[in-house]
Amino acid sequence: MQITFLGTSSGVPTRSRNVSSVALKLPQRSELWLFDCGEGTQHQFLRSELKISQLTRIFITHMHGDHIFGLMGLLASCGLAGNVQSIDIYGPPGLNEYLQAALRYSHTHFSYPVKVHTITSGLIYEDQEFYIYCGVLYHRITAFGYRVIEKDRPGRFDVAKAQRWHIPPGKIYSQLKHGETVTLEDGRVINGADLCGDAEIGRKIAYCTDTVYCDRAVQLAEDADVLIHEATFAHQDAEMAFRRLHSTSTMAAQTALAANAHRLIITHFSPRYNPGNPIEFKDLLKEARAIFPKTDMAYDFMSYEVPRRRDSIIV
Amino acid sequence: MQITFLGTSSGVPTRSRNVSSVALKLPQRSELWLFDCGEGTQHQFLRSELKISQLTRIFITHMHGDHIFGLMGLLASCGLAGNVQSIDIYGPPGLNEYLQAALRYSHTHFSYPVKVHTITSGLIYEDQEFYIYCGVLYHRITAFGYRVIEKDRPGRFDVAKAQRWHIPPGKIYSQLKHGETVTLEDGRVINGADLCGDAEIGRKIAYCTDTVYCDRAVQLAEDADVLIHEATFAHQDAEMAFRRLHSTSTMAAQTALAANAHRLIITHFSPRYNPGNPIEFKDLLKEARAIFPKTDMAYDFMSYEVPRRRDSIIV
Ligand SMILES: [Zn+2]
Ligand SMILES: [Zn+2]
Repeated sequence: MQITFLGTSSGVPTRSRNVSSVALKLPQRSELWLFDCGEGTQHQFLRSELKISQLTRIFITHMHGDHIFGLMGLLASCGLAGNVQSIDIYGPPGLNEYLQAALRYSHTHFSYPVKVHTITSGLIYEDQEFYIYCGVLYHRITAFGYRVIEKDRPGRFDVAKAQRWHIPPGKIYSQLKHGETVTLEDGRVINGADLCGDAEIGRKIAYCTDTVYCDRAVQLAEDADVLIHEATFAHQDAEMAFRRLHSTSTMAAQTALAANAHRLIITHFSPRYNPGNPIEFKDLLKEARAIFPKTDMAYDFMSYEVPRRRDSIIV
Repeated sequence: MQITFLGTSSGVPTRSRNVSSVALKLPQRSELWLFDCGEGTQHQFLRSELKISQLTRIFITHMHGDHIFGLMGLLASCGLAGNVQSIDIYGPPGLNEYLQAALRYSHTHFSYPVKVHTITSGLIYEDQEFYIYCGVLYHRITAFGYRVIEKDRPGRFDVAKAQRWHIPPGKIYSQLKHGETVTLEDGRVINGADLCGDAEIGRKIAYCTDTVYCDRAVQLAEDADVLIHEATFAHQDAEMAFRRLHSTSTMAAQTALAANAHRLIITHFSPRYNPGNPIEFKDLLKEARAIFPKTDMAYDFMSYEVPRRRDSIIV
């Protein structure tokens, strides 16, 4: 699972940071999921190594322009690229109506199926490998945070070992593969776990934007391998953060700390902290690290490969 | 009057060409007019030397996404930039409804007045210095071509010469300034033109996209100093041009020729002619020049200072 930041600015694009969008690459199935889609996201795709043709799902946090104005262009271009199978879009009420209006007035017809799912808090998606939950954050309009959970995978079944133990092949193997304990015809009791490698513990990624500090963000980020959290403002501008219902760098760090997250990546920065200003981006990172040391600061095209827990323990 | 191309690709952006937008800078009044506004136009502003704060008018040709999907983001950012006075937008039916829907669903409120004018063929704007006309081209949906006409300016009144001729100052001066013939109290008959420099002939710019070859484009481009015309396809792909109601490079050139235009700039190229393909952009330019030698090929951020006729004659 590889996270790529396609836009890390809040509100307006700057020369070096585009407005919000984060891609999650699932290499094992050649799929790409997108979180938010600010204007110019399709342009960022062109400049990245990501393939627009792998896009299957788009998750929208809220309806502010800097999170959705790239959606129509991206979807239209996916159609012209010609190799997209279908796209499922998840987002708050109003998203479907917005897309329908934009389609109608721009005379756009997608050449592939696009399905819009209006979400409410809770489980919004499940397949063999993933669960995705969402919850309402605390912003000026309804904004959803997302929690992507990779399901645990049982360890690999050691066939050679089973054969060495003279366990006859058949239905028993599939029980043992799932870690069950079975009694053989010869009376031996075998624990499947003894024939399986270490289970792979699923990874958890939380994406919380736009929001001021809130308990729901902490819940969504609980024990997360990575929490991606907005940090629009520096700590000094907390009053503005409370007024506009955005987070400071320190609120993001406190969320990561309270949630026992393993890593925090802050993003969605106000252009007011561009290099050369009294407070700069690097100061926001410093503030966050003082509270939660394992913090990184996103920049456009930054990639982060989410490590497996198992690997983390060994290394 | 300086023309800057902010996007020169048709349909989808490429790494080097954004979708349609052309800026017209009027230095004498620190104003900027924009023609079309594809996604990423505000990003192109950031990369150019143009000032978004000078933007006063936006003219939209038609409602296809590659000409309008940058409008909401640009207008929202104009508000956040904080120094825009007001913006007038001109375009086809549906434009106002599209903007109203996008505003509503994205909870956007502009902090300055935005007025949308739904246009029909004919004169759509006039001020002391300019007329702007539009006419319906021939595309899959209603598409307007524009003709910007700078009014002729009487030559500069030579006050020193009038004094040498012992013409008493007063109301007479303003009559002479306008080139009128007056009779002085002493009986002399003075032709104002003899006291004025050469009149400055107004310049004419035509912008025709998207369209297949049509008489209306020729009318709009009549005697134009510059005709900006789409050339989506190469001559070889004329069948596709007729089917999709776009122009070939040769249609653009024929329009310039029939209109007696002084210069042609082609734009809005299909990405299929990217360098490395069997037919390349440079081939489109060659084709157009074979018919209309004074043809240039637009590229992103290309600037063209429209020369005055007078200058042209002297040089
Ligand atoms: Zn935002
Ligand atoms: Zn077009």
